Amino acid sequence: MSARILVVDDILANRRLMQAKLEAKYYSVLLAENGPHALEVAHSSAPEIILLDVMMPGMDGYEVCRQLKASPETAHIPVVMLTALSETADRVRGLDAGADDFLTKPVDDFALMSRLNALLRYNAVTNELRQREASGVKIGAFSEDEASTLNRPVNVLVVDTSPYNIKRLRDPLEQAGHRVFTLDQADGLKQSGNEKLDVVLLGMSNQGYDPLRLCAHLRTNDATRALSIIVTVDERDVDLAGRALELGASDVIQQPLAVEELLARIRTQTRRSRYVEILRNRVDRGLELSVIDQLTGLYNRRYMNNQLSLWMKRSSMGGTPLSVVSVDIDHFKKVNDVYGHEAGDRVLKEFAERIMANVRPKDIVCRPGGEEFLVIMPETGGDLACSAAERIRRAIAAETFDGGTRSASALEVTVSAGVATFLGDEDTIADMMRRADDALYKAKSAGRNQVKSLAA
Amino acid sequence: MSARILVVDDILANRRLMQAKLEAKYYSVLLAENGPHALEVAHSSAPEIILLDVMMPGMDGYEVCRQLKASPETAHIPVVMLTALSETADRVRGLDAGADDFLTKPVDDFALMSRLNALLRYNAVTNELRQREASGVKIGAFSEDEASTLNRPVNVLVVDTSPYNIKRLRDPLEQAGHRVFTLDQADGLKQSGNEKLDVVLLGMSNQGYDPLRLCAHLRTNDATRALSIIVTVDERDVDLAGRALELGASDVIQQPLAVEELLARIRTQTRRSRYVEILRNRVDRGLELSVIDQLTGLYNRRYMNNQLSLWMKRSSMGGTPLSVVSVDIDHFKKVNDVYGHEAGDRVLKEFAERIMANVRPKDIVCRPGGEEFLVIMPETGGDLACSAAERIRRAIAAETFDGGTRSASALEVTVSAGVATFLGDEDTIADMMRRADDALYKAKSAGRNQVKSLAA
Repeated sequence: MSARILVVDDILANRRLMQAKLEAKYYSVLLAENGPHALEVAHSSAPEIILLDVMMPGMDGYEVCRQLKASPETAHIPVVMLTALSETADRVRGLDAGADDFLTKPVDDFALMSRLNALLRYNAVTNELRQREASGVKIGAFSEDEASTLNRPVNVLVVDTSPYNIKRLRDPLEQAGHRVFTLDQADGLKQSGNEKLDVVLLGMSNQGYDPLRLCAHLRTNDATRALSIIVTVDERDVDLAGRALELGASDVIQQPLAVEELLARIRTQTRRSRYVEILRNRVDRGLELSVIDQLTGLYNRRYMNNQLSLWMKRSSMGGTPLSVVSVDIDHFKKVNDVYGHEAGDRVLKEFAERIMANVRPKDIVCRPGGEEFLVIMPETGGDLACSAAERIRRAIAAETFDGGTRSASALEVTVSAGVATFLGDEDTIADMMRRADDALYKAKSAGRNQVKSLAA
Repeated sequence: MSARILVVDDILANRRLMQAKLEAKYYSVLLAENGPHALEVAHSSAPEIILLDVMMPGMDGYEVCRQLKASPETAHIPVVMLTALSETADRVRGLDAGADDFLTKPVDDFALMSRLNALLRYNAVTNELRQREASGVKIGAFSEDEASTLNRPVNVLVVDTSPYNIKRLRDPLEQAGHRVFTLDQADGLKQSGNEKLDVVLLGMSNQGYDPLRLCAHLRTNDATRALSIIVTVDERDVDLAGRALELGASDVIQQPLAVEELLARIRTQTRRSRYVEILRNRVDRGLELSVIDQLTGLYNRRYMNNQLSLWMKRSSMGGTPLSVVSVDIDHFKKVNDVYGHEAGDRVLKEFAERIMANVRPKDIVCRPGGEEFLVIMPETGGDLACSAAERIRRAIAAETFDGGTRSASALEVTVSAGVATFLGDEDTIADMMRRADDALYKAKSAGRNQVKSLAA
């Protein structure tokens, strides 16, 4: 897949060389010759990846990276640092400045292209989420909950056939505050509840299994596909690393392992996957709020109409029955007028809880507005719906409601309910709702605190 | 990237051969030996792509495809049909049954792998959206608006250096009801407003340009990246087709062009890209609703708090001022009590419109609840905020409001407003809101219909 890549290097010949390499693979290339220029282009031209030289006069690569990652407009752009140095300390410094990856000059073409592909895949996922700007989905500030997501302990699964290798990894990881699991402990982790694995550390060289197949398996398995996979390879197995990245590995680290670098790469990968998790949660939470009535937590009118139309279609196709129950609190206006809105709101909330406690999981309880409620009952005929409505009526009348003030601490509340059943293809939402309301009206006129259907 | 692929073929040797090919590339493979079995596996195991043999005893591939595409649970899975036949009529029949692509047996490895990659990329985009289940994002039924999105005329851009080729394509496309543009007309299309290009038809062989570079350019350019790109190649340029798919082309069709096949492929591509458009709109619309007050269309309390915390942070970092104006309708309870809730709601709506007409685009107007409103004014000091609030006050008092009934057709409405300004790092949302409310209280006590800040 093609992409727009920003190349930052103070030496013209280096820029030209990298440009030629990338354009030969049909990437489109932006160029910058120093740090401030790079920051400017990153803001104005929205590159998808930045290749950043470390050693530059004036502002060096570490500082450029720090500034890119500190700005909400550019923080999401993956940065690959390029350096002539291959000291662990330099790599750790780069990763800590927020770099997503690190390549040593002269840059190996195969290594470069497989890194670019892996980063573009990551972009494809986050971009779709980031584009949802409404509702604060775009990451700006983190809430407290989100910050705790970012900072919870990291669970690392170490996959290696040598007990010696596992032990050598376990100690420094645990010292860094991570929790380490091996394959035979992974099931235990799953069973322990809401604990989630973050990173798989996968030994690629000299293993008793085919490491590429395991890598592919982790990526195609629903339970493991969202994990960060860091593979460790011997220096002579560079090709293996490239193929692992192509199959979906998130990062590669070369043996012999430098602990500091390993920890920095785990930090980077964890930050990324938790960032995606936060984006997803923001979108989902936003969508949830759009279908929920804020006072009671029941579904709102919009969702009610969606679901009703969906279930009417299913009922038409599958021939299963469908009913709705319109529920209305008797004389609710009085509660508001006599005891105030706050007492009224408390009654509505408790009312919603009692309904929820008296319906089946498949029933859809909605509050289209005010003191009206509607229960959609899929796969339910009129008689069954009437007895379900009767159960609700009794649950409301059985105990008084607490309006929260002394005078309103034991309010007698009753409801009237009207039941309507779907009549098949020709029926419409409006008609079915009107029949439910007509039945409700019958219940009200007959003295309230009762259930009626039109037939009855 | 690895993936789970379902191979459907009635002949054991064919299944084994395809399985070996795919597993060599580390795909994980599911197998089915007939149509009903394929439908079962597709539902139970959620494959990411289905390779479907056409000629099978009992239920043939066309029928399997139709049933897969008719079921909401499997409709999104790309289907590639495999056949010994290479008649255009068969391909068109497959595409019309909903197939996403077509390969002729014996299957060329390179062609197969590049098609799989292209389809997996498409999956990566749609899966992220499809997973947002709340709020009816998942495609079930289409609304009227959505159906009209699906059925609007298709705008096709034909890119070819030969006027003869262009003419040969234009006629059949226009007869099929599509609208055809050439490169020199593309600008005109852009300027004509909300018209959107759907498909680019890109000649790859014997052109005066580098077709791969153009393909990459279309995919990296913001204005064109979401387009479907169908490339046309000569039979001898199969490699070129594969590379185009790798760079992001959506589909390939071989010269000499069969018009029926071309039209079927355009239908398939357009259906796919509009499907993505509908998914995106559903997510965006859902998110929008979660931050909007349904009565007035202003932002709700949740968004107000988000934005306020965001702008306070920006103000802290950048040193620009920030103010808020708390606005409250004077004696609003009376409107409700005397003229009823409907009149009250009409007043709130018109009130919201007048505020919106009297603020700057960067101001954020919120209705946290009831008759309270809050305007967040980024990059605005206290004095400027006071004059802005004064402008709002005058706009409300200047003309009567129409409550919708004869008795309520000319209501005199006034507002009081309190202004507070951000005090820097130590300041909190709660403190700033309290200061705005204190100022508002001062305005009320001083006789209403006026603006106060705490300092004044």
